[in-house]
Amino acid sequence: MSGAAHRKNMTFSKCVLCPDGHTPANNRNIDKKSAVSSLDSLRGIVTILSKHQIMNSSDLDLILEKAQEAFVAMNAYALRRRVALMNTIADEIEALGAELVQTAMAESNLPEARLNGEKARTVFQWRSYAQAVENGYSLDASIDTANPQRAVPKPDIRKTNVGLGPVAVFGASNFPFAFSTAGGDTASAIAAGCPVVVKAHPGHPKTSQIMADAISRGVAKAGFPEGTFAHIFTETIEEAQALVSHPVIKAVGFTGSNRGGLALVEVANKRKEPIPVFAEMGSINPVFLLPGKLSTAGAELAKQYAGSLTLGVGQFCTNPGLLITEDNPALDGFIEALNQEIVNIVPAPMLNAGIAVAYRGNREKVIGQSGVELVAVAANEAADGQGAATVATVSGVDFLINDELQTEVFGPFALIVKCRNAEEMLAVTEKLHGQLTATLLATSEDLASRRELVAAIQNKCGRIIFNNFPTGVEVCKSMHHGGPFPSSSNSQFTSVGPDAIKRFTRPLSFQNWPDEFLPDELKNANPLGIWRTVDNEITKAAL
Amino acid sequence: MSGAAHRKNMTFSKCVLCPDGHTPANNRNIDKKSAVSSLDSLRGIVTILSKHQIMNSSDLDLILEKAQEAFVAMNAYALRRRVALMNTIADEIEALGAELVQTAMAESNLPEARLNGEKARTVFQWRSYAQAVENGYSLDASIDTANPQRAVPKPDIRKTNVGLGPVAVFGASNFPFAFSTAGGDTASAIAAGCPVVVKAHPGHPKTSQIMADAISRGVAKAGFPEGTFAHIFTETIEEAQALVSHPVIKAVGFTGSNRGGLALVEVANKRKEPIPVFAEMGSINPVFLLPGKLSTAGAELAKQYAGSLTLGVGQFCTNPGLLITEDNPALDGFIEALNQEIVNIVPAPMLNAGIAVAYRGNREKVIGQSGVELVAVAANEAADGQGAATVATVSGVDFLINDELQTEVFGPFALIVKCRNAEEMLAVTEKLHGQLTATLLATSEDLASRRELVAAIQNKCGRIIFNNFPTGVEVCKSMHHGGPFPSSSNSQFTSVGPDAIKRFTRPLSFQNWPDEFLPDELKNANPLGIWRTVDNEITKAAL
Repeated sequence: MSGAAHRKNMTFSKCVLCPDGHTPANNRNIDKKSAVSSLDSLRGIVTILSKHQIMNSSDLDLILEKAQEAFVAMNAYALRRRVALMNTIADEIEALGAELVQTAMAESNLPEARLNGEKARTVFQWRSYAQAVENGYSLDASIDTANPQRAVPKPDIRKTNVGLGPVAVFGASNFPFAFSTAGGDTASAIAAGCPVVVKAHPGHPKTSQIMADAISRGVAKAGFPEGTFAHIFTETIEEAQALVSHPVIKAVGFTGSNRGGLALVEVANKRKEPIPVFAEMGSINPVFLLPGKLSTAGAELAKQYAGSLTLGVGQFCTNPGLLITEDNPALDGFIEALNQEIVNIVPAPMLNAGIAVAYRGNREKVIGQSGVELVAVAANEAADGQGAATVATVSGVDFLINDELQTEVFGPFALIVKCRNAEEMLAVTEKLHGQLTATLLATSEDLASRRELVAAIQNKCGRIIFNNFPTGVEVCKSMHHGGPFPSSSNSQFTSVGPDAIKRFTRPLSFQNWPDEFLPDELKNANPLGIWRTVDNEITKAAL
Repeated sequence: MSGAAHRKNMTFSKCVLCPDGHTPANNRNIDKKSAVSSLDSLRGIVTILSKHQIMNSSDLDLILEKAQEAFVAMNAYALRRRVALMNTIADEIEALGAELVQTAMAESNLPEARLNGEKARTVFQWRSYAQAVENGYSLDASIDTANPQRAVPKPDIRKTNVGLGPVAVFGASNFPFAFSTAGGDTASAIAAGCPVVVKAHPGHPKTSQIMADAISRGVAKAGFPEGTFAHIFTETIEEAQALVSHPVIKAVGFTGSNRGGLALVEVANKRKEPIPVFAEMGSINPVFLLPGKLSTAGAELAKQYAGSLTLGVGQFCTNPGLLITEDNPALDGFIEALNQEIVNIVPAPMLNAGIAVAYRGNREKVIGQSGVELVAVAANEAADGQGAATVATVSGVDFLINDELQTEVFGPFALIVKCRNAEEMLAVTEKLHGQLTATLLATSEDLASRRELVAAIQNKCGRIIFNNFPTGVEVCKSMHHGGPFPSSSNSQFTSVGPDAIKRFTRPLSFQNWPDEFLPDELKNANPLGIWRTVDNEITKAAL
């Protein structure tokens, strides 16, 4: 087999498998013995899907050895080089031709317009995270100057954020660009100074390969080491575990199911050196429809809610799959209006056959629970692989005693919880698991009269929305995409927006360090011209 | 037994055990059923040490019910009230009379001057963390304004940090004030808006009770709910586990041994809802003595190093217990000078008998390893309960193959690793476990010629020190006290300095939220007058 074939599959500019393709290994940075033993114990064999070549544990060692070398190298570079790398990768993705979207359409059933938008979003992520590195926001640079006159002399202490080390990224099925190979996890890890090893999502392997090639071209053009980015195809859970278990890997980014995320967390916690897993595992995103709003805008809201619920065949981690409200005559009108919308939604193909089967199974499971009543379903029958919009209701009492009703039904399904009164609505809220988002459809008077409820809702979510819907996740500094467990494995960090970079950094303090050997962001002259906290004042001034 | 006795022991202003002492329970915020079942499974029985009253699992439930109520209440208060609470607690601690230091001297064997300094440090922590709340640094407030004209309308998104929920704190033996009941973990959790339940350290129970009473007086004077702070005495590991397992607890702060910290991490990970544990578990804090520095300042350095090593009978998590250097003739002079210092150090009482026994045992264990040679020991024999300063050497090769040589010997013990050359020194560095600190004793020429070594050292520690010693941990914004595993369980957060507050917060985003219902820090007018990131610019301006 030619080196060129390997090269393409592994998205290294040189192949790590062939003797003619790679630089001799430098083992210094890797504890080979413990790496191999942990891999052996997991029977880790990583295969290259596109050619089904067997990639054994020593191949993974070589990939991660390159990643470790790249980590050392890229942290010796000036920060502006990292910014240039990210902008170069953004250029490469932007320059990709129609093949990208056509391939993703074929692999994911997502429509062209949506994929064009997602491509633009992906490019924007790389550029805006590069901007956050350039303006120093991801560094949180701070300086406390010395005071030798103090009774106990005060040293000079300065702090910045440094990369954790090589990061393993597991992409999602529902965003083949923005949350997959070239998605937010990869962009934010690189922004943090961490090389990335992506496990390609099996749902869209060709799309992933096109993206991986674009990243590798960017890495080469920017003059970064080949190990800055690697892309591997694995077929079994054991292979994914081998990657997470490898001692070179220092953090994990994951977007997907609760089961998948928790499996990685378990592996990461069992390591000799446990590592953080930032898993965004989705949620049912409760919508609270309050009485004032219901009485004034019920029919219009029903239309908007149906639109958000069925957008993209409901295949969003922010899909509003639960509506909590009080049972009253106005609610009947809302449900009737919702039914009018839902019956007219034409069932559409889901991301893949497995997801469509799971949607039906989970939907039936919820509908089969005690007290659940079906109130609306798309009139056209769903063909194989399609998802039909469906709405059911249940009483607050039945919801309170049955945790199964909080199961995420990934797809266009909503459960409406009809509470008897405000007190029951509060009890239902306090029973909720952690959520990525919560939405209030309310008047100002509703908010003013339900402060306790609003506080309880805030305590359950990562983003709280007023008279809007959760199914757009804006890429910006103020976005928090994450939430209390189990919506994410770590509620303290976002996976969207430039603050996502901080997932892959840790603070490092320098005490009495000579100016010339400090990182640029901590030098007296402030050569980067960034905002810093100096003796508790925020300033761009030089010292 | 009188309500008053309970009251004092539990540091609630009202007793939770006696019918006459407490307000009727409001169960709404607690999932009582799951709380009790998880406690039962752990056979959790919490006892009040000072009176040896049995506190069963339902007593713990009551304490945590109060904590949850306080969490809800304190997050509805204006931020300035939290600042006032913290300053009031600082005043109460500052006002404590001679009894505090006298009690701590008796319980910990620490000298008066040290304890007076530690008391001032503790007060400073409360005040400076209050300042960080007041100036908004702990909130990271940011605003991205709406753009309704964009093709896909851009919503208004604003983000602040909110408290995680009630926090369990486990104090340390070696800092009875600054890292115990009223220490940095308690201060930073309250600063984050989280009620605290402290498990009193058994090594200094009376000291802890005096501090707890001061905090409770502060809570009452500031008008905060009684559940804002609770102080419990436990006797077994099961009791500590019951606290960490309780569903109301949302995070843990711990300072102490590796074994203790990891046990809590394990319990926290096994919960139905896993929670973060911020455990600072100590390290051996390598000192790198580079050739240029050794040749120019060997004897002076030996004196300074001996001082840092034996300060406080070596009982600091930042004690520099490992010295890594190159074997050359100048090193013999350094070791001889060090020996001169060490032999003259008079053995002093350690914190308690158990710690003195452990010191001897761990020291003997390291000395007994292959290739280890004793080179200096205090001339005066150590009595029971005392620790004698001790220094040993080992070759780089022996160190590389023996992980036991990285065991923390808590006390005035140092191991000198003699490397054959620069390459071996780099290999030894890369073999090191994660450390709180690393120190370079070096000239500028040493730094310039050893860039690879310096990068490798930075990768192993949370704070890197140049020609200074690690045994002072400055309380300031730029301090990072934490480091890669196993020196801490979470390298991304500090346990010293106002950034420690962020351990107990999570971001919360508000989308399209009405101005009047936003938290003050996110309101258009910026009524708190704090720095905020508005549309990617840092500013104090109103919108």
